[in-house]
Amino acid sequence: MSRRPVAVFALAPWAFGGVFPADLLTRLRQLVDIDTTTTFTSLDGPAAAAALAEADILLTGWGCPRLDDTVLAAAPRLRAVIHAAGTVKRTVHTAVFDSGIVVSSAAQANAVPVADYTMAMLVLGAKHVFTRARHHAAGAAREWPAIRDTGLHHCTVGVVGASRIGRLVLDRLRQFDVEVLLHDPYVTTAEAAALGAEPVGMDDLCRRSHLLTVHAPALPETRHLLDDRRLALLPDGAVVINTARGSLIDTGALAAACATGRISAVLDVTDPEPLPPGHPLFALPNVLITPHLAGAQGRELRRLGEFAVAEVGRLLNGQPLLGRVERRQLPFIA
Amino acid sequence: MSRRPVAVFALAPWAFGGVFPADLLTRLRQLVDIDTTTTFTSLDGPAAAAALAEADILLTGWGCPRLDDTVLAAAPRLRAVIHAAGTVKRTVHTAVFDSGIVVSSAAQANAVPVADYTMAMLVLGAKHVFTRARHHAAGAAREWPAIRDTGLHHCTVGVVGASRIGRLVLDRLRQFDVEVLLHDPYVTTAEAAALGAEPVGMDDLCRRSHLLTVHAPALPETRHLLDDRRLALLPDGAVVINTARGSLIDTGALAAACATGRISAVLDVTDPEPLPPGHPLFALPNVLITPHLAGAQGRELRRLGEFAVAEVGRLLNGQPLLGRVERRQLPFIA
Repeated sequence: MSRRPVAVFALAPWAFGGVFPADLLTRLRQLVDIDTTTTFTSLDGPAAAAALAEADILLTGWGCPRLDDTVLAAAPRLRAVIHAAGTVKRTVHTAVFDSGIVVSSAAQANAVPVADYTMAMLVLGAKHVFTRARHHAAGAAREWPAIRDTGLHHCTVGVVGASRIGRLVLDRLRQFDVEVLLHDPYVTTAEAAALGAEPVGMDDLCRRSHLLTVHAPALPETRHLLDDRRLALLPDGAVVINTARGSLIDTGALAAACATGRISAVLDVTDPEPLPPGHPLFALPNVLITPHLAGAQGRELRRLGEFAVAEVGRLLNGQPLLGRVERRQLPFIA
Repeated sequence: MSRRPVAVFALAPWAFGGVFPADLLTRLRQLVDIDTTTTFTSLDGPAAAAALAEADILLTGWGCPRLDDTVLAAAPRLRAVIHAAGTVKRTVHTAVFDSGIVVSSAAQANAVPVADYTMAMLVLGAKHVFTRARHHAAGAAREWPAIRDTGLHHCTVGVVGASRIGRLVLDRLRQFDVEVLLHDPYVTTAEAAALGAEPVGMDDLCRRSHLLTVHAPALPETRHLLDDRRLALLPDGAVVINTARGSLIDTGALAAACATGRISAVLDVTDPEPLPPGHPLFALPNVLITPHLAGAQGRELRRLGEFAVAEVGRLLNGQPLLGRVERRQLPFIA
């Protein structure tokens, strides 16, 4: 009888309970031999060495140590790294890919709450809900008959980046009667049309978007994609939403543009992150800053574990992995 | 050749341009004879009398004068009142219904932005986004690894009232992996199941709901539906959302419960409305108050006009009206 596959956890204890609640551990034990009471945050030391020596699968997540040559040498049976979190870019060394080990990430599952957050902020941002709530709390007169050009209905939404999250946002936007623009240098006109969007250049997108949401990776060429010049192209009353990475927007330019009241922003990420206490952006009524919470948290963490456990099942059944990450993708992903 | 039907506008000028933009007026002129440069906010006086004498259809909306016996007497040809706004309860006197005139409202179209607002607040409220944004702005330490039991995934949402808006919210909730409870005394178990919800009593709903959203009409029997006792039944960390009417919640009891930090609230309506400046609810970091903006505004107003123009088309083609309001419904609707 063939040996049952062996899996080992390597993620931070603070994440473990949320990502892998008891019912998921039960499901996992039906698939593999696994010590569900232990998770490694360092792969040095004798306990880790003993575990790695037998491991067919590493179940990683937030707080996982970097997987490099040393780990590979200690894990001769390893055939898959299943990452129950977003990007593997800073966790999985290229040596792992080169050795033929299959790498999968739950980025698709982590994209869901980010897309939900974005869609909610598009709906509320289009009505300037946060700005108006603050004016209301400050005792400003009720102004609703005077409000013009608000609301998502019949407005233009610019999506920057047809990433996993960008695509989910594009999909959710189909439920609304809006014009959708997409800027992504790797997406063809036909692909954009299939995504329900008009492909446009970045400047054109800025000129036309009442709402602009960025879902591009942080790369040298995307740094300050929204700079002073492009922010000036946005129409009056536009709202910029950033759930991607702070470096995509020039923080100083954004603060200056928002300070005039001409445009607004919803920022789940900033540059630097967090912003220093007392940063001018915190004081602006038309800027809402949330502390990098759009991704999976709390009850949402289990979605990552659900994905990872299902991925283990697919691996063992010889089915294609839905979260497979290839080495050649690394330069283009977040 | 039969006379073309004649329609007359009776709504406030501030609403007119948004509800009936130029392209809708063009469509309307193809259906009826109508002076698209005039809208009456009073139906007294010689100009109104001349218009009413010929009117087959009244196109009403926000700011419409009350339609009663006097108006009926002045409009002998009137066969339909098409209301390009929400409720007709305070506009259309029962005499109009009794005279056989067909009454239609765009409440279904106005329900859409309210359901969108509610769904957005459910997503963000489940993550305590507003509370955490305020703590973040106040310089609180980044706390996200410590957050537990947040997020819409796998939580329980209680919907109070299977009204038009309540049903749209129930429909949107199908896209999320959540447990849905419904309290509505007029909905059967089978109907609730068809709406994707478990029918429960109000107390049970309070005990189990991480998020509770009210979509019931303001009636004597729904006054203070959420009182001190029921608010105390809510689980720790629950969020109450009210886009319906302020009177459904005991404001003092809600303020006291939120002041402890045990529960949170998102209120688009309040009692009284607006709250007096400096009301304690404004100062609580876990309460977001928006100035009655969830309904159609700005670009969303045209959705009401689109519905009304389509309704005129259905009327003239002898098709059933989608927004038909019957006299017997009046006691139960908002």
